[in-house]
Amino acid sequence: MSLIVEKFGGTSVGSIERINAVADHLKAKCDSGESLVVVVSAMSGETNRLLGLAKDLSAAPVTREMDVLLSTGEQVTIALLSIALQERGVNARSFTGGQVGILTDKVHGKARIQQIDDSKIRVEIDAGNIVIVAGFQGIDENGNITTLGRGGSDTSAVALAAALKADECRIYTDVNGIYTTDPRIEPEARRLDRITFEEMLELASSGAKVLQSRSVEFAGKYKIPLRVLSSFEPDAGTLISYETGEDMEQPLVSGIAYQKDEAKLTIRGIPDQPGVAHRVLGPISAANINVDIIIQNVGADGETDITFTVHRDDFESCKTLLENTAKALGATEVLGDSSIAKIAVVGVGMRSHSGVADTMFKALADEGINIQMISTSEIKIAVVIEDRYLELAVRGLHKAFGLAEA
Amino acid sequence: MSLIVEKFGGTSVGSIERINAVADHLKAKCDSGESLVVVVSAMSGETNRLLGLAKDLSAAPVTREMDVLLSTGEQVTIALLSIALQERGVNARSFTGGQVGILTDKVHGKARIQQIDDSKIRVEIDAGNIVIVAGFQGIDENGNITTLGRGGSDTSAVALAAALKADECRIYTDVNGIYTTDPRIEPEARRLDRITFEEMLELASSGAKVLQSRSVEFAGKYKIPLRVLSSFEPDAGTLISYETGEDMEQPLVSGIAYQKDEAKLTIRGIPDQPGVAHRVLGPISAANINVDIIIQNVGADGETDITFTVHRDDFESCKTLLENTAKALGATEVLGDSSIAKIAVVGVGMRSHSGVADTMFKALADEGINIQMISTSEIKIAVVIEDRYLELAVRGLHKAFGLAEA
Repeated sequence: MSLIVEKFGGTSVGSIERINAVADHLKAKCDSGESLVVVVSAMSGETNRLLGLAKDLSAAPVTREMDVLLSTGEQVTIALLSIALQERGVNARSFTGGQVGILTDKVHGKARIQQIDDSKIRVEIDAGNIVIVAGFQGIDENGNITTLGRGGSDTSAVALAAALKADECRIYTDVNGIYTTDPRIEPEARRLDRITFEEMLELASSGAKVLQSRSVEFAGKYKIPLRVLSSFEPDAGTLISYETGEDMEQPLVSGIAYQKDEAKLTIRGIPDQPGVAHRVLGPISAANINVDIIIQNVGADGETDITFTVHRDDFESCKTLLENTAKALGATEVLGDSSIAKIAVVGVGMRSHSGVADTMFKALADEGINIQMISTSEIKIAVVIEDRYLELAVRGLHKAFGLAEA
Repeated sequence: MSLIVEKFGGTSVGSIERINAVADHLKAKCDSGESLVVVVSAMSGETNRLLGLAKDLSAAPVTREMDVLLSTGEQVTIALLSIALQERGVNARSFTGGQVGILTDKVHGKARIQQIDDSKIRVEIDAGNIVIVAGFQGIDENGNITTLGRGGSDTSAVALAAALKADECRIYTDVNGIYTTDPRIEPEARRLDRITFEEMLELASSGAKVLQSRSVEFAGKYKIPLRVLSSFEPDAGTLISYETGEDMEQPLVSGIAYQKDEAKLTIRGIPDQPGVAHRVLGPISAANINVDIIIQNVGADGETDITFTVHRDDFESCKTLLENTAKALGATEVLGDSSIAKIAVVGVGMRSHSGVADTMFKALADEGINIQMISTSEIKIAVVIEDRYLELAVRGLHKAFGLAEA
């Protein structure tokens, strides 16, 4: 009998009607002989409601208490879904992250899962129960409630699938799979039946919102077959696979991801000597600001420039930090631009085919779009452009790589 | 340094404004040198909101899952109150019932506290923290979430006070103490500065709504000084004391409590032999219906009648059970009346003074009210009357015993 982990996001359980629909779906899966562990998010709107209450009390509420607060959202959903299933005569039992033994580190608000004790879930499955688990949450070694950060329910599902050695992990969401690019920007975007794990990881970390990149990493580490489906119109969705695909016809490029709301900072005229990158970026890392693309150019006269991108929310605080560093290092100047976007083309076919970068650069040039930064990996080419050209660039690249055709 | 347990009910924490007010109050107490453990209920309206969601999914939702669901109400409040305190620079940490080691039996929806491990709270207090605990909830020995039933937060507070050997347990509510009777019925009702534990227990179990009778029992068992105060206009409130009061001038009667929504059932003409009360009341107890007053009269010809009262909600199901028993025992008939009320006068002075019962019966006779049943304890006389005379009876008795004067 196959063991499946299914995860339902906030819109999939956003109302009594939706919870009843999910319960019907799960009953059918159960009747077909699958053993099920189900991970759910908070009902859509609930997390924001709770955040609003906290923000009314404090501009910077303590993260430990935010986790106590926000974790109730998923706890409400597990209880309701279990009630709906038992109303249908299906045996179901709900568990919080802590109850089911999801142990995390102590970083409230963005904890990482360290260990899952699968024994409790196995007992329940062996007793014939559907096990409903609150996503997004765990406990630390002292029993404090922790949360995994936004989108963390995907990670909960994949981590449970790994711990249980599940046959498949299915992520039900409000879209029916992974697309060649965002269909809201390019109406001709095509749904993919399959995508390799590496491509999915690059797409997720380049801004594709369907799956959180941490959950993809986790899936890859344990080789969990991961499927993205719509909870509204379930079909086969998109399967994220681990096939090396040597005899598969591989497309050059599988998808295009983007990130709006990026910002760029440059520090100019710093001494070109060992340790300077660390002195520039160390304080930014210490302030928990994620730096994405980093470029260093060697200049004249023993001096160098460093340019990097951060999320636009972090732009001002990052600029202040950088200006302090500039003073200490005797830098020429600090430049900032908070109106940039990043766009990335991803495809395992790049490994064996040349010319992808040039096709990309030509397509952008044809649209009159200037490239500000370039960053590459084995299966990805990312560029930074002015943000107002983003939609134009996505559509131009989608066409240049022929992604609308299967 | 004194250790105090303070409990705030749903209306006391019913809005962001109220939570801020409670946080201000607690900061002042903390600054005055008290060590504090604070028990809170769900924000008013929240429990009903959650109940509504469950009822939309199932007419009879599973009790285990209802506990998972409802316990989130208090969890939200503990987090918000802790955030509000830390915003004021007060060290505070929130804990669910399970986290703080409140162990209960397994009866979901009306669990009883079996044990509290005070070690975790002591560590927090010693570290200088205000400890915020979710009322109304605990866990059973298997780690399942349990709730104590409506009003259970009072019990949580008293049980914590007992486990911690606290100097006082203060119950903050929307009234400012214990009154001689319900001021909504008798505007001349007077607030009591003190009341003995025995009187409070009789009043609570006779229908006085301010404190849940289970919490009073618990307080008595461990001799916890218990105080009822208003969270809106805090003053000294009413202290529930354990003084034997031999040299205290004791009022004959301290208060009058009542219960509307009662119902009365009579089974007539059953064999007057050992075990017959058990055969009549056993099935009712087995159906988890609480029976209050029970009266048995010996009749003629070796037959007897049994009359008892139950809550009006249980009237129909109880009548069905009783009719089955009547058939089995060959009883003459089953009579029922679902429009009765119970009224009780309570006072430790009754122990040493005669004539209280007669004063009561005369006062009711003066108002033309017929007494249907009488039940007495050492410090209480309760009567059952037709429910439409309830307010008249309360006011008449309040006057007859001179309760408006201090």
